[in-house]
This record gives sequence, C-alpha cells and structure tokens, in this order.
Amino acid sequence: MQIAKVRGTVVSTIQDPTLRGVKLLMLQLVDENGNLLPKYEVAADNSVGAGIDEWVLVSCGSAAREVPGNKQRPVDAAVVAIIDSIYVEDRLIYSKKDQYR
Amino acid sequence: MQIAKVRGTVVSTIQDPTLRGVKLLMLQLVDENGNLLPKYEVAADNSVGAGIDEWVLVSCGSAAREVPGNKQRPVDAAVVAIIDSIYVEDRLIYSKKDQYR
Amino acid sequence: MQIAKVRGTVVSTIQDPTLRGVKLLMLQLVDENGNLLPKYEVAADNSVGAGIDEWVLVSCGSAAREVPGNKQRPVDAAVVAIIDSIYVEDRLIYSKKDQYR
Amino acid sequence: MQIAKVRGTVVSTIQDPTLRGVKLLMLQLVDENGNLLPKYEVAADNSVGAGIDEWVLVSCGSAAREVPGNKQRPVDAAVVAIIDSIYVEDRLIYSKKDQYR
Amino acid sequence: MQIAKVRGTVVSTIQDPTLRGVKLLMLQLVDENGNLLPKYEVAADNSVGAGIDEWVLVSCGSAAREVPGNKQRPVDAAVVAIIDSIYVEDRLIYSKKDQYR
Repeated sequence: MQIAKVRGTVVSTIQDPTLRGVKLLMLQLVDENGNLLPKYEVAADNSVGAGIDEWVLVSCGSAAREVPGNKQRPVDAAVVAIIDSIYVEDRLIYSKKDQYR
Repeated sequence: MQIAKVRGTVVSTIQDPTLRGVKLLMLQLVDENGNLLPKYEVAADNSVGAGIDEWVLVSCGSAAREVPGNKQRPVDAAVVAIIDSIYVEDRLIYSKKDQYR
Repeated sequence: MQIAKVRGTVVSTIQDPTLRGVKLLMLQLVDENGNLLPKYEVAADNSVGAGIDEWVLVSCGSAAREVPGNKQRPVDAAVVAIIDSIYVEDRLIYSKKDQYR
Repeated sequence: MQIAKVRGTVVSTIQDPTLRGVKLLMLQLVDENGNLLPKYEVAADNSVGAGIDEWVLVSCGSAAREVPGNKQRPVDAAVVAIIDSIYVEDRLIYSKKDQYR
Repeated sequence: MQIAKVRGTVVSTIQDPTLRGVKLLMLQLVDENGNLLPKYEVAADNSVGAGIDEWVLVSCGSAAREVPGNKQRPVDAAVVAIIDSIYVEDRLIYSKKDQYR
C-alpha cells in the first residue's frame, strides 16, 4: 500500500453503471519522509469515508476489488484505511491528532 | 484510476478474435495539475462512449475486465468514466462544461 | 495496452512445459509520437502471428492469459493485435500500409 | 519479490473491517547492492512477524493475498520471508547474523 | 516477460510456510541491447533450474503463480525459461552457447 493525502474529488455523470454512487477521491501520494510526491491516484472510497486532507492507505490493482461492494467494479485503486500515525524507528513522522499536514 | 484525455484511436484488422468491435482509444495521461504527461494508454471503451478531447478515468490491470463484456478479453486498460469536474481542495481544476482543455 | 514494434525473437529450450510451442517476440515499446522507447517486452504471440517490424498492441499482466490457449501459461505479456493505423486527432501517426517505420 | 528493510509501522483505527488486527509495516526498499532506495511499501505482515531493521522479501499485487488469512483482504503488498542472507555470485551482500544494516 | 541474468540466491528460514523448498534467485534485469540494468527481481525458480550467470525470462505478477506448484504461493515473480538465444532483426544479441555474458 502507498500513503496518500486526500486532495479532492472527481465527479462523473457518464460512467460504467457499476460505479454509480461510488465516491472517487483524488489522492496525492506521500513519500517515506511524509512529503507530497508529484503523483496521484483516483481511488474509490466506499469503505472508510476519508475527508479532505486526511492521510490514507491506498491499495492498487486487484486488491481494490476486495473492498466490500467492489467485487465487480472496474476500479484499480481503493482507500482501505485512514492513517492515525506513522512511526519510522522511534520517530513519529505523522500523527492525525496533531495536524493535517 | 488515472486521468487521461482522449487523443485518438487505434485501428486493427488482425487481432485477437475477442477484440472485434471493441473501440480502442489512444489516451494521453494527465497529471495532478491538469497538464498532459508524456505517457499514453491504449484503452478499450465499450462502456462510456468517450469522444476526442474528453477527459476520462482509465482503469488498468485486471479491473479493465470488470467492464461489462470484457470478462474474457485480453485488455489491460479500459475507460470507465467521462469526467465532469475535478476539484482539488476548493479549486476546480477541470470542468467539462467550461472547456475541453 | 501499449504500442510496440516487433524487433526479434527469444529462443528457449529449457522452459516451463506449458510454454512449449509458444512464440516469444522481442517487442520494443513506442511512445505517443511513434518513436521507439528504450523499453522492451518479451511477449507471447499465439494469437495474431505478428512479423518483424510490424507494430502491435501488447497487453500486460493477467490480461495476457485471456488470449486463447494462455489460461494456464505463466506469461505476463501477449500480443493482442497488429496495428493498421493510429490517429491522434486528425493526424495519422502510423499506417501499416505506408511503411514499417 | 523485492528486498526491503523494516523501518516502522502504520497505525489506523478507521479501516476496512477485514484489516483489523493486521500488522502494517513501513518497509524501505533495498537495491541490488544492499543500499536503501527512496521507495517504500506499506505491507501486511500476518505471516512471518518481522521486526524493525530486519530485511524481508515483499510480494506485491495479487500475490499478497495468497498469504494465509489475506484471501479477502484489500492488501497489495505482504511480507513473505525474513531474509537470512543474500549471495551475489560468491559475495555475501547481506547476512542477518552479522548485522542489521 | 523481462530478460534477466541470474546473479545469486536469497536464503530465508522464517518465511511463509508455502515457500519452503522454493529456490529464490536474485536476478538482475537486462536491457534490450543486452546490458545489465540497475534493477533486480527476486524470483522463484521451481520450474527450470537456472544456474548462476544464465540468462532467463522472468514473469511478474499473477503469471508467476501459473508455474506448477505456485498456485497458492505468495510469489510475484518466477523464472519461466532459460534463454538460448535472442535475435533482434538479423543480429544475434545473446547466445548461451557462445558465452555467459
């Protein structure tokens, strides 16, 4: 899984019928030091209800279809968790409580 | 999913029999700021009927075969939605209504 | 799918038994302007019979196993079509008839 | 599989229900000479119990769901082995016994 | 598939139980001109028995699990063939007989 920050949403009217009602979030990927990368992923979030600026874990590939309800949806990325904290050795590199970085 | 702009089409006569009748679009990928990237994907569009210059969402990998009709087709990319608008925080970075960028 | 030019072949005697008789082509990937990239893929061609210098579509990942006969073969890339022409907006960027570029 | 060093953990309360109780490790990838790369993977470890600074093998994609218990979890990366030693030709480039590099 | 040269082995005692007895090779990837790339893959070889310095084809992703015995193993890369020769147009760029390059 990769770490990403929720940046926005993608809105669509004409879409594969199975995608109706699925929230599509614009995620910006975060590197191992907690910095934003110039990479994004549009991911389905029908499981955790992540909001703007939250840090999340995104699963890509067929894993995205293991989220309940996605089995037959043509999604290749899904939000699977909202991150509370990230520790690298003894260092806390992200804490949701302290800040939305 | 990645954001892409429909740039053209790929035409083929000799192909895997299951691909007959499937529209193959030449998509150019778009970055998180809405700029065209030097990357493309040839994707099947048998679901949404996207036209030249429209912005779409493309799903890659096994997800492409969840689009109705693709189950047994050897496609690794499919158009799954035509994008109406993309919001990053409060900023509208793309609106189909205003422009085909 | 990616666009690729058939450059050669890979020959093997000691191989997974299911690969026996499968033609393995050395493909060089082509960018969105029709230029050769410094990237290749060795792909199974048991469907379309592509020849040297032809431009083809290559499907990667599990899609390669949807080509008839590949269901249980450990192949992660397959040729799925021989390209006749590629149009980007009004411009013809490749035509098999005119040239093998 | 890629070689990675266990650097830390990712903690989450709001997550896909199937992820409850799954340890999520922050792994930093290692190159072919044993140097840390500026790339990471957050991987499930419910199989081998790797600890901080250990070197592991990480499997990505659908393979991650072959680890017992992951079948229906939306994980795209899993720790599948703790590495004892890596030999490149006659050279030992990593030995767990000697050091946690 | 990608072309790779067998460089060494990875040894592990604590591993996913299904991996017991599976030989894990350290492969270095080779480019389209036959030069070694700064990229590697640790791949299961339970099919062809490749030795140090041999050139092989490696299949990645779910294809790796089509090798007999791997169906339920969490491996994302497998050696599927030992390469005898590679031809690019009329040029022989690799021959096992002549050399282990």
